[in-house]
Order: sequence, then structure tokens, then C-alpha cells
Amino acid sequence: MADESTPEPTPASGSPSRRSLIGWGGAGLALGAAVAGGGVAVATRGGDGPRTVNAAETGAAVAFHGAHQAGVATPVQDRLHFAAFDVKTTDRAVLVQLLKDWTRAAERMTAGLEVGEGTDGKIAEAPPDDTGEALGLPPSRLTVTIGFGPSLFERAEFGLTDARPEALVELPKFPGDNLDAARSGGDLCIQACADDPQVAVHAIRNLARIGFGKVSIRWSQLGFGKTSSTTPEAHTPRNMMGFKDGTRNIAGTDTAGLADHVWVSAEDGPAWLAGGSYLVARRIRMHIETWDRASLREQEDIMGRTKVEGAPIGRQKEHDEPHLKSLRPDSHVRLAHPDSNNGARMLRRGYSFTDGTDGLGRLDAGLFFIAYQKDVRDAFIPVQRRLARHDALMEYLQHVGSAVFVVPPGVTGRDDWWGRSLFESTKEA
Amino acid sequence: MADESTPEPTPASGSPSRRSLIGWGGAGLALGAAVAGGGVAVATRGGDGPRTVNAAETGAAVAFHGAHQAGVATPVQDRLHFAAFDVKTTDRAVLVQLLKDWTRAAERMTAGLEVGEGTDGKIAEAPPDDTGEALGLPPSRLTVTIGFGPSLFERAEFGLTDARPEALVELPKFPGDNLDAARSGGDLCIQACADDPQVAVHAIRNLARIGFGKVSIRWSQLGFGKTSSTTPEAHTPRNMMGFKDGTRNIAGTDTAGLADHVWVSAEDGPAWLAGGSYLVARRIRMHIETWDRASLREQEDIMGRTKVEGAPIGRQKEHDEPHLKSLRPDSHVRLAHPDSNNGARMLRRGYSFTDGTDGLGRLDAGLFFIAYQKDVRDAFIPVQRRLARHDALMEYLQHVGSAVFVVPPGVTGRDDWWGRSLFESTKEA
Ligand code: HEM
Ligand code: HEM
Repeated sequence: MADESTPEPTPASGSPSRRSLIGWGGAGLALGAAVAGGGVAVATRGGDGPRTVNAAETGAAVAFHGAHQAGVATPVQDRLHFAAFDVKTTDRAVLVQLLKDWTRAAERMTAGLEVGEGTDGKIAEAPPDDTGEALGLPPSRLTVTIGFGPSLFERAEFGLTDARPEALVELPKFPGDNLDAARSGGDLCIQACADDPQVAVHAIRNLARIGFGKVSIRWSQLGFGKTSSTTPEAHTPRNMMGFKDGTRNIAGTDTAGLADHVWVSAEDGPAWLAGGSYLVARRIRMHIETWDRASLREQEDIMGRTKVEGAPIGRQKEHDEPHLKSLRPDSHVRLAHPDSNNGARMLRRGYSFTDGTDGLGRLDAGLFFIAYQKDVRDAFIPVQRRLARHDALMEYLQHVGSAVFVVPPGVTGRDDWWGRSLFESTKEA
Repeated sequence: MADESTPEPTPASGSPSRRSLIGWGGAGLALGAAVAGGGVAVATRGGDGPRTVNAAETGAAVAFHGAHQAGVATPVQDRLHFAAFDVKTTDRAVLVQLLKDWTRAAERMTAGLEVGEGTDGKIAEAPPDDTGEALGLPPSRLTVTIGFGPSLFERAEFGLTDARPEALVELPKFPGDNLDAARSGGDLCIQACADDPQVAVHAIRNLARIGFGKVSIRWSQLGFGKTSSTTPEAHTPRNMMGFKDGTRNIAGTDTAGLADHVWVSAEDGPAWLAGGSYLVARRIRMHIETWDRASLREQEDIMGRTKVEGAPIGRQKEHDEPHLKSLRPDSHVRLAHPDSNNGARMLRRGYSFTDGTDGLGRLDAGLFFIAYQKDVRDAFIPVQRRLARHDALMEYLQHVGSAVFVVPPGVTGRDDWWGRSLFESTKEA
């Protein structure tokens, strides 16, 4: 997404690769701080407040540990692999052990290490600990973020019913929704983002493998290009409609915006969720061929912004403040603006996808929309209700997949694990 | 695919972006040589012999013009979008005009320009010439390569029947094939490769758009990571089975190997094809979950190479010569080796894919195998026949898509177009 003035960040020479680190496994490696080769220690913090160093510039890892999970406020990586899982086990202890095993695996992979511990280089008679396809690749800013779906809290055997946050509601059916059950829902989700898709795919695959027999993948989605910027200083990426996306997003460095709109605080409750968030995922297919036949003026009026510059209609520059009254009342940007939604904001972190063609020779392509927010009842739900009813863009879109998850707080160290606060505040039914 | 010793090539500052070049359209720009910004002229040649400069290092364009099409001997880019088309028009003149229009569009896109010419920056009442989602992105080493399928030559209305090369045979059914007609065949194909997937997807989409009503996409495939190296000096990428792939491939710099095994010469015939080649594409799904449960020793024995280093079994280093007799007779590398196949060789240029999950929660992932060769009857067909019967790897694979195309010679300049030698040597039926 770089242009001439901002070279795309690249793994620097001297960055650690999975290969160069084989054999470190099992050593008491301090994973709380990101590991970087060549003596470069990177001060990136896993989502806990502003970043001081651009990890991409050093090719280094994004820290896994922190008050918040990484992968939310973290500057958006180039590629995504997202998977929703069904939980097969009915045994709470098995689920807890899996969450612990996953946490350790995510710690290692985000640091650029293989999944298994204690690899000694001997040919194994047993299956290798790691599937190997990311051997030799640098950490590529991998983040691995977990979420829990409403259905997990409804499984009586896990004893989570009373801990379900009030805000974890099922999304309502919106006008025009054409949801495919096979691309919707899930008891758990994992969002893996990295600058190299092989690293993101590797992460999901190895977590699925560790979960074999206990969980199974319900659906998964590859995102080939980010569509939303969370770094206002960088160049804004474009979505498949050709428009810059993320111009007025909540920035990963905007501590106040994150506190007000993204992170659940101790006062918001429930207590186990302090530092967490909520994730909405929508697979939005675009009628690319129809969109491509609309005139440039029509496209710009519908969006409420110019195509090349990304400026609000009637303004000059991308980051100029939109003047809502000058925009068409059914334009996307006017309808989605906080002023039209009681101040509602969310952190958008979506990716473009293309999954071949449908039976009619049309590209199955669009936006895999991901948004993080403090409460979906004040953010995604009312905004999407307004968009679904009035947005002129809807003529060119179809929402075909949908899911909502609560995102637990970050893992604070080697003795912590994904979901600990939730499970420790509840007990077997 | 870089590791610590070879930083991933990155668009350099000063490289041209689509955005910075808006307005150049229509000027008598010499596209015969690759365009580079900041005064950097890149001597990369579009597939005609060895490259002298690594275009990726300058973020520049790969030259479109040459005796051979780019995208074959060109060092493999990171990402792929491949599309097969059905020809809807029955009018030869319409098809010829489309090939001309496509050629001009491919020239522009590979140089990092927008599709349309003469863009003057005014808001258009008509649909914009270019869909816009690659605005601001550098050329990203985009190559666009065309092929003609056997079915095109059978369409009596185009008058190509007599020009069909003898070597353009339909692939036979191989043991274990489980081909999906919706992912196989096609009258035409376009292979778009680039270091940025958004650039490759943009190329296919805009060609489909130009072809609207004349051709339609039959199937398409996104490849997220290259699996084959054609640059022996660089680090060999890994496929989804975790093994280095492309170690003993034909290198893009191996002029003799290319002449012997890849490029069709004037003597090979037919005359219109001199400088062309043949492309076989196979969508090979991997039973990832089963493979992941095989021991490392079993995986290595089946492949005939070690996993971490990629050395032939019994040898030390990746590029050591395999000693075939030490390998299991049913190992992939022994069966695929030229010595087991009357010297047959091909240039492999495949990509990993993942397209979500199947109904059973298994990743739909594997290798989108692409191979170029002088004659499929001496190369892909006998090798694949041997592999399908004997290769231990077959237990973990299923071929689910298949296509073969003849690849016409390169476009030599602004007055040339894709397929000119074929169409000028034939006439309307
Ligand atoms: C394929 C579907 C969509 C496309 C192509 C799209 C595109 C865009 C574009 C180009 C912008 C302007 C640039 C920016 O500020 O980021 C924008 C803004 C925005 N969009 Fe979307 N969007 C889509 C779906 C959605 C959905 C489903 C939601 C939430 C329900 C949403 C919420 C927003 C918000 C909150 C803004 C910022 C408004 C502002 O503060 O000015 N978008 N979108
Ligand atoms: C998913 C399927 C496949 C996988 C995972 C795979 C993997 C590999 C690997 C790891 C190597 C060794 C490294 C190298 O020299 O490149 C290799 C070599 C090779 N493969 Fe495959 N391959 C697959 C399918 C095929 C198919 C369908 C063909 C052709 C019909 C083929 C032909 C070859 C050839 C010619 C070599 C080089 C043999 C030599 O000269 O040593 N492969 N493959």
C-alpha cells in the first residue's frame, strides 16, 4: 500500500527467522518483550497504548503480552487469515487446557519461533511439532487475537452462562442480509494478521492442529489486502471499490479514542472483561461488475468522497473535515459519520478478499469487514441498521457472512492464558 | 520468503506509483522499456533471456515487451491471480479487437499506469477507465501472461482449427483425478503475478471488465504465496507441506535449459508459436490434516528430501545432487527426477492457495501447480502419469482442477498484440 514517499516496511536484514531460531524452544525465553535478532530490541507494545517504534521497519515481532490483546490497536498488517471454530469437546477442563496450549503456541509463533518446544533437530518418529511451512520466514508482525462467541456462553457444560456480558448480543437481521450459516457464527474465533500471508495461514493451521478433536474450523477467510488504516500518518489503503478506506478511523495511537470507543473498562463490566473489546466480522460481497459500470461522479456521490484523493465531497484534501450537509443524504460517509449516530465510533480493521468466481462468472470478491468496539449495541448495530436502510452503497453490496465475539483482555505473562479471567471467575456447571 | 540474509525486496522510494503517473495517459510513452521513476532505468527483459537487474530491488516494472511473454522466466513474484475465460462472442473480429485492447491494457498496468488512456483528472460522467483499487501502488513487478486453450481452436467460427499445434492435446485422465469441471478448462487464460496481491487482482478484474459481454470468467484462483523458485541464488520458498519447493527447477537465467525445455522454437513449430510455450495448471488440494499427523521421518522419506534444509535424503545440502538409488522408489523426488522420465523437465511456477474450509471443517488448501514446457506430451503428461501411479505423496493429495493452454510468443512492441501471429496466419472460417 506504499507509494513513492513511504517505502513499504520490509523485514530488515538481521531480523530473526523461524529457521535461525530452531533450537531455542523450551529455553526460558522471555517472551514478554518482543524478540528481535541482531541485537535490536523493539519497544512495540502489544496493543497497550501507543507504539513507540514501528515494528515493521525492523522486521521484528509484535509483542504478544499486554493489558490488551495485540491485533486490535496494532498498526494493520498487510494480510489476514481469520477462522471461526466450533467447540467439539464438552469437557470444561479440556477447553481450558486448549486455551493454555493455544496461548503458548501464539506466544511462540508471534515471536517467530516454531510451535513446539524443545526441538532438538533429530528426525522425529512422531509428527513434528510444527507444520513447517513458515520455516525461514521472519515474524512478519504476526498478531493472533482470540474471541468468544455468544454460543460458547450458552453451552451449559462450560458454566459460563452467568459470566456472559450483557453487551454480547446476537446481531439482529438487517435489511438486505443474505447470510450463509456456513460463513457465520462460531464458538471461538482467531484473527491472525501478518505482513506475509504464509505466516498468517501457518498460525491458524497450527492452532487448528493443536485443537484437533477438541475444536473444528467452522469457516475461515483469507484477506489479501488491508482496507483500513489505523495509522493516520501512513498512506490509506484502498478497498476493492477503489476508494481509500480508514481515513477517519480510530487510530492505534489515539489513546483517548481507544478508551472511549474500543476498550471495555473495569467500570463498563463485567470485571473479567476489563481491557477487552467486541469484534464484529461481516463478509460483504461487492457486485463489482455493477459498481464498475457506475460513473465516477456517481461512485463519488455515493461514497461521499473523491476517488483519487479521498477528500470529502466539497473539500480538497483527504483529511479535511467532511461537511455533512454538502453530502448526499444517502451517501455512505454521511450515514456512517458519528454525528449521524449519536457519536458512535468503532475501530475498523477489514481486509479485501477474493475467493474465485460464482457460477455466473462474477468475481466472489469484496470486503471482509472487521470492527472493534466497546459495545456493539451503541456502535455496529445502530450504524449498520442505518446503512442497511439508507446507504446508496447497499445497491452494490450483499452481506453474506456475520459473526460477533467478545475479545478477552490481553495475556500479561507466561503464567497467564487466553480467557483466564473468564474461567477463573466461573466454575464447572 | 526472505530470511535474515536476504531482505524481502521492497518498493524503493522513488519508484513510480499509479497515482503519481495519472495524467501520463495517452502521451506517446515508450513502453518497450520498463518505466522507472527517479531516473532509475531497469534493464529487466520481459522473459527474453537472463535478467541483469533485479527489478524487485528497485520496485520497478517488469518489461512487458519481448520475444517471450513475461511471467514465465521472470523471477517468481510473491502473489498470483489466475483466471480462465470462456469466449462468449462468436465474431472473430470482436475477439481480435479484444486481444488488442487487452494487450494495450496489460502494457499499461505492468508499467504501473491505469488502464484507460487520456485521463484528464476531470470527474467523469462515464464509468472511469480503471477500477482504481491499485491507485497509488507501485508496479510491484506485475506480469500478465495469456494462454489459449484447446477449446478455442475447436470453435469453427474463429478459423483457427488448422493452426492448432499438434502438441496442444487435452490432458488425459490420471489415476486419482477428481476434477471439478467448474475449476477446469477454459478458452483463454490470464496469469497475473505481482508482489502485491491487490495489483494482481486489479489486473484480472480490469481485463474481465474490458472483456465484458465478449468473454466471461470461467474460474479464477488466488495464490497467496509462491511455492517455486526460479532464482537459484535466492532462498527457496516452502509449500504448504512445509518443504522447500523449486530447488531443482529450471532457473529463469538458465538460457540453455529454457531453450531445451520451455520455449518452443521455430523448428519445433508451428511457425506462429516460435517463442511460445505450454502451460499446465492443476489445482492440487492437500489433505493437510492427514499430512500433519505423519511423522517427520515419513514426510521426508515420501518427499525424498529433508524438511528443514531441503537436502536430498542421504546428502547434506539443499543443492547437493540427489542420489536416486538412496531414495524410496515411491518418493516424489525420485519419481519426478529427469532420470526417471527420459530427461523430461519443466519450469514450475506454482503458488499456495487456501480458500476457506470444506463442509467438514478441513482447510481447502494446497498447491496451485503451474508448469511451463515445450511439449506437454514429453513433460507434464508422462511425469504426472508416473506420479499419479506410484508417488507416495498421492495419498495426501487430490487433483481437483486442471487446464492446459498454449502460450503465444511475446508482444514485441506497440504495434504487436497477443496472438497476432496466430490470427494473421489464419482467416475467418
Ligand atoms: C463493502 C462495504 C463498505 C465499504 C466499501 C466502505 C467504504 C468506506 C469508505 C471508502 C469510507 C471513507 C473513508 C474512511 O473514513 O474510512 C468509509 C467510512 C466509514 N465506514 Fe464504511 N464501508 C463499508 C462498510 C461499512 C460498514 C458495514 C460499516 C459499519 C456498520 C462502515 C462504517 C464506516 C464508518 C464508521 C466510517 C467513517 C465515517 C466517518 O467518521 O467519516 N462501513 N467506509
Ligand atoms: C502438491 C503437490 C506437490 C508437491 C507438494 C510437490 C513438492 C515437491 C518438492 C518439495 C520437490 C523438491 C524440491 C525441488 O526440486 O523443487 C519437488 C520436486 C519436483 N516436483 Fe513436485 N510437488 C508436487 C506436485 C508435482 C507435480 C504435479 C509435478 C509434475 C507432474 C511435480 C514435478 C516435480 C519435479 C519435476 C521436481 C524436480 C525433480 C528433480 O529434478 O529433482 N511435482 N516437488
